[in-house]
Amino acid sequence: MSTLWKSRYAQRTLGIKSSAIRELLKVTQRPEIISFGGGLPAPDVFPVKRFEEACHKVLSEQGAQALQYGTTEGYQPLREMIARNIARYGILATADNVLITSGSQQALDLIGKLLINRGDRILVEAPTYLGALQAFNVYGAQYVPVPVDEDGLLTEQLDPSLRAGPKFMYVLPNFQNPSGVTLSEGRRHQLILLADKYGIPIIEDDPYGQLRYEGEHIPPLVVLDWENVRRDNTFTIGNVIYLSTFSKTLAPGIRLAWIVAPEDVISKLVQLKQAADLHTSTFNQYVAYEVARDGFLDQHVKLIRQVYRERRDAMLQALHDYFPHEVTWTHPKGGLFLWVTMPEGTDSQALWHAALAENVAFVAGDCFYPNNGHEGGRHMRLNFSHSQPEQIREGIRRLSVAVKMQLRTNHVIH
Amino acid sequence: MSTLWKSRYAQRTLGIKSSAIRELLKVTQRPEIISFGGGLPAPDVFPVKRFEEACHKVLSEQGAQALQYGTTEGYQPLREMIARNIARYGILATADNVLITSGSQQALDLIGKLLINRGDRILVEAPTYLGALQAFNVYGAQYVPVPVDEDGLLTEQLDPSLRAGPKFMYVLPNFQNPSGVTLSEGRRHQLILLADKYGIPIIEDDPYGQLRYEGEHIPPLVVLDWENVRRDNTFTIGNVIYLSTFSKTLAPGIRLAWIVAPEDVISKLVQLKQAADLHTSTFNQYVAYEVARDGFLDQHVKLIRQVYRERRDAMLQALHDYFPHEVTWTHPKGGLFLWVTMPEGTDSQALWHAALAENVAFVAGDCFYPNNGHEGGRHMRLNFSHSQPEQIREGIRRLSVAVKMQLRTNHVIH
Repeated sequence: MSTLWKSRYAQRTLGIKSSAIRELLKVTQRPEIISFGGGLPAPDVFPVKRFEEACHKVLSEQGAQALQYGTTEGYQPLREMIARNIARYGILATADNVLITSGSQQALDLIGKLLINRGDRILVEAPTYLGALQAFNVYGAQYVPVPVDEDGLLTEQLDPSLRAGPKFMYVLPNFQNPSGVTLSEGRRHQLILLADKYGIPIIEDDPYGQLRYEGEHIPPLVVLDWENVRRDNTFTIGNVIYLSTFSKTLAPGIRLAWIVAPEDVISKLVQLKQAADLHTSTFNQYVAYEVARDGFLDQHVKLIRQVYRERRDAMLQALHDYFPHEVTWTHPKGGLFLWVTMPEGTDSQALWHAALAENVAFVAGDCFYPNNGHEGGRHMRLNFSHSQPEQIREGIRRLSVAVKMQLRTNHVIH
Repeated sequence: MSTLWKSRYAQRTLGIKSSAIRELLKVTQRPEIISFGGGLPAPDVFPVKRFEEACHKVLSEQGAQALQYGTTEGYQPLREMIARNIARYGILATADNVLITSGSQQALDLIGKLLINRGDRILVEAPTYLGALQAFNVYGAQYVPVPVDEDGLLTEQLDPSLRAGPKFMYVLPNFQNPSGVTLSEGRRHQLILLADKYGIPIIEDDPYGQLRYEGEHIPPLVVLDWENVRRDNTFTIGNVIYLSTFSKTLAPGIRLAWIVAPEDVISKLVQLKQAADLHTSTFNQYVAYEVARDGFLDQHVKLIRQVYRERRDAMLQALHDYFPHEVTWTHPKGGLFLWVTMPEGTDSQALWHAALAENVAFVAGDCFYPNNGHEGGRHMRLNFSHSQPEQIREGIRRLSVAVKMQLRTNHVIH
């Protein structure tokens, strides 16, 4: 019967596949498995009690408004709070520059909808965030991948890629998903100058910026863009659209994120969002505002930093203790992930199966490259936010067994 | 600066305009105005207390899960509850046929994304739901409008339109927005047979089906499709995709709706939803499940029916008492809206301004026709769910002043 529907699918849906990660996660939900696969925040730091108080307050004092339809732009006090919060990082936006979205994934979808015509090329880091590739794929994006190293995107390799005329650049400067690397301040300046030189705008995705465990805060691209390029102008948010979220600082289950952009871009995004889902849950916006207000968010972020730093350190220590010397990994200064590189010739898919036999899981690197590039074949992404330190140590021990086996197999083969 | 962005907007965003309704609503939020403009449920029937209890229960017992990422398909107990509820109307779906969406607007967006290539023609009722036009416009839809009368879509006029080969039909059979009319059972059978004859699938949008204030329930198209056409088969949901929502029975601010479709269509929609917003708020799904369970939803719907029936009756009575005899209106058997038709030559936009001067608002009919057709020029949509009966009476009195003035003006002009 459904052939009737199938024959009617639009062109854009051809080749859209279910996320590899989603499929992997199904396998790894067995309780005996220690999973470094997902990108899940630690549920033990969700501020559940504070949510309960906020729900009570919102429903008892503003129930009629919080359960009613709301504006597409978002709940005004929440937009204002976000504008105030990001002002501390030098982003001089007002509430009018802020659009509340149903998670950052919707921000990426709306941006794809707004900017991508079929065949447009998007410059991305290689590796990059899988969810962005999924969002942009729907609109027929092609990709110009540029490699990253420990200091982020290799800006010195950018010129030829920018000359190819990408529609925009999509960059995660802080503790990038999946690699965990951070774009250095020097390269940020260089990137902004190049963006200006070639007139190529930037989408700056910053879900983890507040989760820094060591080193100094580096100004976001959206701020450097203003300082470096438009020092003489009155303030406009110009070449850079900035994205962030409450998913990693409050909870992902409320699906609340935001876009910071010039007002006329916001107004176009509002039209697209209205057609996409009318508006983000009024109730969740009221509740998040009540949870975050009066300094709670800052205080809570401190707790998360402390917990995740300990987990990152546990993973780094365990990798050091158990992993063979041929294998290297990044040292993330924040965020949720680190990135392991195995010797040339390692097949991370085969390793994935071997690891599963040891009851430990990760995501194989090839997911994070456009067109499932083979560049990812010897990498794995490890999440350290979701497991307790002792689980992390045991999981890395198990993984090391699989890795060593795999390296021996390789050796035999070569 | 933002010219940089503007020059990069994708083709699909050209011609996407902000909703007329949204703009109108801004004007009508002044407290002295009685507004029949929005499509808002009555906040006085929101089950606020029950929401409070549900939030408390969910957070204290399942906080870690409810605030975490969830599956794209939706919270399994909620999907199962929906499957059980719709089974009572003869829709023999399982949870696997149900996809939870972020409001019905997202269902329409995902359907547009799945099915519409630029230039595809969609058969719609004229007038039809504005939000569907907005969702489909993004994907470059063209329209084949077919008029409605008091018994809904004029199926006897369908043959030539179906021969023109629309991609699908979009139909609201119950208490249609904006007209309030209901597709008769006879025409439903005819529609199903025609859909089968021409192989044109149907999107059945049913947000108000449970809000019937008089007359007998009529089986949904998705059920008739199965009974009439596929009686000999094992059960498949075939030619019809069915949409409904909790917005009108629980609260719109939680943004929860659902799509019922064959499993392979659901699986494709899941991929598109994953790219669009990952999943609908886990928290809201847990809470809605707790609110609705143990028969509460049914009981609550009875209360809503009682309240809205009274308001509809107040509006019908006031129209009868105040409006001149040249003006006619529909008699909706349920839902939130009725549709007023003024004599040929009336300009509903001019009337709208005249009404605003009398401190009363409505939505002019032309919004509800594809390409803002002039067919709508002498119609207005009136919402009766949001105002109290005495406000409704006073609002209709004020509106009658503007209408009579307008009719006099017309008379002078002609």
